[in-house]
Amino acid sequence: MSTPDTPLAGLRIVECATFVAGPSGGMALAQLGAEVVRVDLPQGGGDHQRWPVAPNGTSLYWHNLNKGKRSVTIDYRTPQGRELLVALATAPGPNAGIYLDNVAGRSGLRYEELAARRPDPIHVHVQGHPSGKPAVDYTVNAEVGVPDMTGPRDHSAPVNHVLPAWDFLTGMTAATGVLAALHRRASTGEGSAISLALSDVALASVGNLGWLAEARLAGEGRARLGNHTFGSFGVDFPTADGRRVMVLALTPGQWNALCTATGTTEVFAALEPVFDADLSTESDRYRLRDTIEAILRPWFERRNLTEVGERLDQARVLWGPYRDTHEAATRALADPSSIVTEIDQPGIGPMATSAGPLRWSGDTQAPVPAPLLGADTDAVLSRDLGLSPAELGKMHDAGLVSGPPAPQH
Amino acid sequence: MSTPDTPLAGLRIVECATFVAGPSGGMALAQLGAEVVRVDLPQGGGDHQRWPVAPNGTSLYWHNLNKGKRSVTIDYRTPQGRELLVALATAPGPNAGIYLDNVAGRSGLRYEELAARRPDPIHVHVQGHPSGKPAVDYTVNAEVGVPDMTGPRDHSAPVNHVLPAWDFLTGMTAATGVLAALHRRASTGEGSAISLALSDVALASVGNLGWLAEARLAGEGRARLGNHTFGSFGVDFPTADGRRVMVLALTPGQWNALCTATGTTEVFAALEPVFDADLSTESDRYRLRDTIEAILRPWFERRNLTEVGERLDQARVLWGPYRDTHEAATRALADPSSIVTEIDQPGIGPMATSAGPLRWSGDTQAPVPAPLLGADTDAVLSRDLGLSPAELGKMHDAGLVSGPPAPQH
Repeated sequence: MSTPDTPLAGLRIVECATFVAGPSGGMALAQLGAEVVRVDLPQGGGDHQRWPVAPNGTSLYWHNLNKGKRSVTIDYRTPQGRELLVALATAPGPNAGIYLDNVAGRSGLRYEELAARRPDPIHVHVQGHPSGKPAVDYTVNAEVGVPDMTGPRDHSAPVNHVLPAWDFLTGMTAATGVLAALHRRASTGEGSAISLALSDVALASVGNLGWLAEARLAGEGRARLGNHTFGSFGVDFPTADGRRVMVLALTPGQWNALCTATGTTEVFAALEPVFDADLSTESDRYRLRDTIEAILRPWFERRNLTEVGERLDQARVLWGPYRDTHEAATRALADPSSIVTEIDQPGIGPMATSAGPLRWSGDTQAPVPAPLLGADTDAVLSRDLGLSPAELGKMHDAGLVSGPPAPQH
Repeated sequence: MSTPDTPLAGLRIVECATFVAGPSGGMALAQLGAEVVRVDLPQGGGDHQRWPVAPNGTSLYWHNLNKGKRSVTIDYRTPQGRELLVALATAPGPNAGIYLDNVAGRSGLRYEELAARRPDPIHVHVQGHPSGKPAVDYTVNAEVGVPDMTGPRDHSAPVNHVLPAWDFLTGMTAATGVLAALHRRASTGEGSAISLALSDVALASVGNLGWLAEARLAGEGRARLGNHTFGSFGVDFPTADGRRVMVLALTPGQWNALCTATGTTEVFAALEPVFDADLSTESDRYRLRDTIEAILRPWFERRNLTEVGERLDQARVLWGPYRDTHEAATRALADPSSIVTEIDQPGIGPMATSAGPLRWSGDTQAPVPAPLLGADTDAVLSRDLGLSPAELGKMHDAGLVSGPPAPQH
């Protein structure tokens, strides 16, 4: 069996997007073998310096979100620069003519501009709200009600989660959209004008969980549950050595395993008639979650994490330890089968980072570093638009394009 | 310009997956026009009764996560049932032979079984850890360090977020993987054996944000920031009428807008030399976030949400109101351009739900209800496997297949 892990090799995508959503979608396609040319303004986009940063001030954020891409800089706010960007985005060939952006306002390319150059462009436009009104992960998260349900039960205010989940999900949805449009173009010869709003991704998702239906039927939102899992049994427990574990019993088998591991099978068997409960059902485990938690807690509090883990694994309990990102990174780096490795990132040096999560035939890929800003300007513009060194030189002199940057010291 | 919003029409996918990740990925493909046949055990999977539930006890969760699919039930734990599932998953044709599952253990189909029937199967296998060790959203979230960074600054324990973000991102990554493998099959004629672990999706994502690199360089994880946005200025403010808004200033323009709206331009101009700060930079806004928050808070506390929103919009501030899911659902239902609508869901009745977020030429789709369990068993098995009514009758009698269910009362 062949094991090529670059199923999109040959595909050419032009990306003009900043922050997390669009760039993470483009990177997903690059990690599948597509050539993704990220286009920025000559001075870099609004995300080029974002935190976290390395000791030398270089953005760890930008260089992790643009791995494996090529970088071209063009001042696309000028008429001449816009013309270059349109030409790149509509380069000929069945595997080109794909444009992913999140540029708002007058600088943004319109589908009609692309369709004037080739009959079948694919344009995926990422935005905040479908109306074009700006929004970011943090604002759409508040708007759909997730922080209202998140956090300790005794906390009176909504709690933001730190993961930009909507950005990542929007990015991967954009990647799916690109490939779906490509499938359609191969079948019908037609292009696609696709728009994708962060707020729609968030609404679609809370709808998909049944949360919108639930709230409409209940006439109110769901109360905060702390670290408890809704509708089943799952909660965190502290261990004797100051660690903490997340433990769940979603299925009857997992519940039996948890009782076995903690020696509580007979306790709960005796409790069921008292509470008129059948703890083999998720709904009764959920109803009695505080009681279950109180009964199990001492078992965890008396044992160190190592012993807890061994006992839970032995009984096949569904659980995981809480870690901080440092422990997570360090453990993953020590595991040769992990997708996390240290690479030599131009501009930064040794950098812990991750490959894509899709494993072809079980194989992990090696993460590919991000380009320096403008590293591929001349190579891509000469190859795709046939610009001569003299023409490129004039564009550099005029500030229309930039890069590659001077060598690092 | 044509506006077909079913770019995957004609594609046939067999899904044998439960809970959120696999089913949400299959649903994304169904919402793009693919025929997705979900296969369950005759009694339904472990997710068929999950909360939230409607007043009649029917799962809002299951019926929202399987919209637009077809439902076939097969007892694939028996040799005869397994044979039916393999045959369905390897049905002939360039647009079939695609199998998405999360079945663990002996019941799970192996790629080699599929490859024995057609040379080019596509198998995307979703799992917890790459080793096959079980994991769910809640455990991988703890393991990569997100709860450790989430929650109020004065809270001593990690805070789980309620959104199953890793499940959704894994599902959409699986959808991207299916389409990438299909692209590869169209180019090379080859099949693909793809595995995708929740824990890899989580590690890839925190790596992509630079969090793993940051932690390795810092030698520790990042401290909790409450509702503050890392590396920039963003935080929530209470309003006079007991509401709350999330407000951000990620770019210099957004910062100027916020100062303008709140009449604080001169205050901050006077403060910059005192703090040796340039508040047009994200890093200085982040460093002085508590000061900025304290200065802005009274402006919000003296105004109702309506006035706050009008003033912020007028100045083009980046902001959003916190809502609960009931308000989010009710507002979306009242908006005819929203992807949220009420549908008539068999088994439930009127149900608020969402369409997919990808808008082709700006159009929203109408959400398609979920099937009843086993609704398509006979139709799909007779069409794809050529089974006669007599053969199907014997299988029903033997409990090998089931459905369609009796009409609802």
